[in-house]
Amino acid sequence: MKAIKIGLVGFGTVGSGVVRLLTEQREILARRLGAPLVLAKVADLDLARPRAVTVDPELLTTRAQDILDDPEIAIVVELIGGLTAARDFTLAAIERGKHVVTANKALLAQHGNDLLAAAAARGVEIAFEASVCGGIPIILALRQGLAANRLQELLGILNGTCNYILTQMSQHGISYAQALREAQEAGFAEADPTLDVDGVDTAHKLAILMSLAYGARLDLEAISVEGISQLDPLDLQFALEFGYRLKLLAITRDDGHRVEARVHPCLVPKNHMLAQVSGAMNAVYLTGDAAGPILLYGQGAGMMPTASAVVSDLLDLARNLLYGAPNRVPPLGCRQALETTRLIKPLNDLVTNYYFRFAAQDRPRVLAQVAGILGKYGISIAAVIQKGREVAGTVPIVMITHEAREADVRQALKEIDQLPVLSPPAVFYRIEDPYLHAAKI
Amino acid sequence: MKAIKIGLVGFGTVGSGVVRLLTEQREILARRLGAPLVLAKVADLDLARPRAVTVDPELLTTRAQDILDDPEIAIVVELIGGLTAARDFTLAAIERGKHVVTANKALLAQHGNDLLAAAAARGVEIAFEASVCGGIPIILALRQGLAANRLQELLGILNGTCNYILTQMSQHGISYAQALREAQEAGFAEADPTLDVDGVDTAHKLAILMSLAYGARLDLEAISVEGISQLDPLDLQFALEFGYRLKLLAITRDDGHRVEARVHPCLVPKNHMLAQVSGAMNAVYLTGDAAGPILLYGQGAGMMPTASAVVSDLLDLARNLLYGAPNRVPPLGCRQALETTRLIKPLNDLVTNYYFRFAAQDRPRVLAQVAGILGKYGISIAAVIQKGREVAGTVPIVMITHEAREADVRQALKEIDQLPVLSPPAVFYRIEDPYLHAAKI
Repeated sequence: MKAIKIGLVGFGTVGSGVVRLLTEQREILARRLGAPLVLAKVADLDLARPRAVTVDPELLTTRAQDILDDPEIAIVVELIGGLTAARDFTLAAIERGKHVVTANKALLAQHGNDLLAAAAARGVEIAFEASVCGGIPIILALRQGLAANRLQELLGILNGTCNYILTQMSQHGISYAQALREAQEAGFAEADPTLDVDGVDTAHKLAILMSLAYGARLDLEAISVEGISQLDPLDLQFALEFGYRLKLLAITRDDGHRVEARVHPCLVPKNHMLAQVSGAMNAVYLTGDAAGPILLYGQGAGMMPTASAVVSDLLDLARNLLYGAPNRVPPLGCRQALETTRLIKPLNDLVTNYYFRFAAQDRPRVLAQVAGILGKYGISIAAVIQKGREVAGTVPIVMITHEAREADVRQALKEIDQLPVLSPPAVFYRIEDPYLHAAKI
Repeated sequence: MKAIKIGLVGFGTVGSGVVRLLTEQREILARRLGAPLVLAKVADLDLARPRAVTVDPELLTTRAQDILDDPEIAIVVELIGGLTAARDFTLAAIERGKHVVTANKALLAQHGNDLLAAAAARGVEIAFEASVCGGIPIILALRQGLAANRLQELLGILNGTCNYILTQMSQHGISYAQALREAQEAGFAEADPTLDVDGVDTAHKLAILMSLAYGARLDLEAISVEGISQLDPLDLQFALEFGYRLKLLAITRDDGHRVEARVHPCLVPKNHMLAQVSGAMNAVYLTGDAAGPILLYGQGAGMMPTASAVVSDLLDLARNLLYGAPNRVPPLGCRQALETTRLIKPLNDLVTNYYFRFAAQDRPRVLAQVAGILGKYGISIAAVIQKGREVAGTVPIVMITHEAREADVRQALKEIDQLPVLSPPAVFYRIEDPYLHAAKI
């Protein structure tokens, strides 16, 4: 069978991994496909910097245009990163009738709807397994493996940098700043970690997973986002005393009418599978109405895991090319949108369990006042920890609540922050605990 | 687009789940596929027994032949179970040019090579996602998602009955017999649990996963199999003291020349993801050379999880039909066998860590004698527990070893069983512990 020719734009870490796989696994890939997958051109602005792999110099170019202009190249791999150049290149490739594989979650989250529309109009495919959770085949699972299910909920640890920092803070009781420094030294965090630690990268990935799960347009704006940079290690310790670990979670849940869409630090029970996910690992815990609970766990980033996902997409697109079946599976897994009526549930309407920490100056009288205000807003306390240890001149009072409405929680905490016996602001985190959730008052 | 017509043979628990999904998710499935998936006939010998779903009586028949004779039925779902009738029906369906979806792991493990050859000769597909781990998309992951990887190792908890029994024994310290009885009462074990508890069902599934992982013919005979029916709860307790849980694992590992293929009870570290898999849940932990470690976890059996897998296969085959691309992905994921030279490593050549338990009658002199014999065979002890508790007139001595060769272990234990100070036989289990493995003497 005829060879499938591939052009690669962006010869960085992941690009080097893709080159390595296409070279070292050449024989396996050809046996799987029944035809050779051939790397025809590699474009990068900087050809001089050192790389983990070498490429036939004949294939190298500094001009992405050379790949666009090569009519023999059927599939391009976009690993440019960033937004503008990546979007321009992707649109130009689509225009030329080339299929696209990308690992660029920011691009998809920001411009995905336009790119998918352009690709559909031109009859080409955009594949993006590598954009979420690196080597874990989560896109494939949602798009095909669980296609007979309605997704009921999905909880994801989608950012290895954040999970590494939280694991270090939890295990060693160190501050966020120190954990970030260590993560940077260990190569698990970028020099500018903003997109990671602010939760934005996680939100990009959640937007992609939601569009697959619900068969609907990407909607990044719908997602409420909080990061981890304000976390106090004290709260990780108290969470542990209640039997919880703190994770940065991406959460979506479908109540049949509205869907939750949120990214924030969250308490999960110590014995939950997600609580076992430590260091830079990623995981997605989801529940399908037929399949029940499923966990997928693995390396969410890095050269070879991400390259593994890129090359599995290449194989898939190459198979469609050989069979003349492009878009055999539509990019979001459906020919027609699955959900046209689902609305996003505003965060204020969320009903869940909460963790609060207050800094009491005058402990004996505090609890009654706090409980009084909480009671006024219909918030009832499930458990309290009051310990003697003094932190910065105050004594922490920590509690977890029965189910409460977010709007009520915010109002109550605002009022509580006015109490003269407390040092504001009160700290709160949401809890994902099926058992506590079930334990109504 | 034209409707895809489906015939279902075997209207039992899983069959009812398939009917339910095709009915209740009809709209979602049509939106995904772009064409309706229509249940055209349902065959079962017993139409009278009560079922969880109802079907238009017009569709029901007691004759599987009616499905074979219907030229409009493009895909059949084989849920007959057992071997002979299932094989005959599957071959007849292939003969008529119908594609087949099956959940029958025993059929595939025993007759898979013949069935796949017949299907290839006739140009039809056999899909079998439901045959391993129910609702977990493990077949899809191995066949496509991780296609750019060489599989280095795979450890699976593939039988929910065994895992339920082992979890109960471990958590409540009860005997195997009592745990089995409770599993039967809870509906997690069959009246005749032989295939499950002897490890044969797990071996069937491992044979399927290995053929996908290595892109090679099914080879059930190559797998060494031990079950759980001889387990003493004492060993689960001692394992815990060493920091391990006991699981029935399916294991394959590729050293580049030979592959391990074994099913047996095995110690795994308490903090390993597989040790978190409790009750009737299933999981596969695998390592790809590019993707790194991956865990897939979920419900391995039951009406709706298994139906979820069957219907995802139906969608996949229907897409190929609509695009005229049958066998777009070959059943084992490759056009040509990936490995033609790999040999199975005999169990006697296995090198791993071991757990031993001896029943000492005369403790003071025992350890020196045992250690002497072990030393003679090059087996060195990593840790020992000797406690005062007497069990049936003897005192247990429990140890774990550094890496040793299985043949040496068997010889040494044979010799140790001759010692008059011990009550034979010595008990041994293998250990899967990456850290202990790395800790050479």
